[in-house]
Amino acid sequence: MPKYWDDYALGERADCGEVRVDGAEVRAFAERYDPQPIHIDPAAAAASPYGGIIASGWHTAAMIMRVLIDSYFDGTTSLGSPGIGKLSWLKPVRPDDVLRVHVHIREKRRSQSKPDRGSITMEVSATNQHGETVLTASDWIGMMLVRPT
Amino acid sequence: MPKYWDDYALGERADCGEVRVDGAEVRAFAERYDPQPIHIDPAAAAASPYGGIIASGWHTAAMIMRVLIDSYFDGTTSLGSPGIGKLSWLKPVRPDDVLRVHVHIREKRRSQSKPDRGSITMEVSATNQHGETVLTASDWIGMMLVRPT
Repeated sequence: MPKYWDDYALGERADCGEVRVDGAEVRAFAERYDPQPIHIDPAAAAASPYGGIIASGWHTAAMIMRVLIDSYFDGTTSLGSPGIGKLSWLKPVRPDDVLRVHVHIREKRRSQSKPDRGSITMEVSATNQHGETVLTASDWIGMMLVRPT
Repeated sequence: MPKYWDDYALGERADCGEVRVDGAEVRAFAERYDPQPIHIDPAAAAASPYGGIIASGWHTAAMIMRVLIDSYFDGTTSLGSPGIGKLSWLKPVRPDDVLRVHVHIREKRRSQSKPDRGSITMEVSATNQHGETVLTASDWIGMMLVRPT
């Protein structure tokens, strides 16, 4: 059963599950997309204010996206996103951290010009195993198909 | 010569070069982090409003980050980012598109509590080969070391 725009409830709060941060993947992602010493060089990272390797913020966002696709969004009805109101990296993410992803639907709008689709506006957050919020994405808009009538 | 906070000029506008979007990588990234049919399934993507495969917005952001690291940021002095004020995906990004990345430094602040570091606030944008802006990241804050005295 596809999940349509109709099935995302205004005000809903969902726990979308978790992801463990893999150290080898932290390095592989950063070597390709964000090759800063704090992400790929253990000695340099240890000497930095972070005290050790931290994940690229883009990798953290990508890991969270995967959790959302696996547990909350329905890719088969999704039409992507025009953007995120505010994206915050609040705490370092380190190898072997376990990130738990939450979503809260703050707005829903059906398109007036294209009534076969609608949008939801979400607050997405991820907390680590110490209960610290590591990332928030506020006013993240998702577009998706409305259930065919 | 490392590039320190001192070397990023308030008001500076830079053309950071370009990246060609690789179709196999669009698929590989999305299969791992954002497995929506519009990113990984050519037939489903062709039948969607996008008319074909489009890159994950997170992949687009990651490709842009790599351009910035290669051509503008100095990873050796970087201390990461607390966030982005507004992240917008304005147009679809497709395999073989060529994205050109621009940055504009809108603010600079030296830390009062930790005077060995400072921040810059940037507007980052990427345009495709048709001159369309595909992504903007407004109020993107980068933190980095101040030149040692």
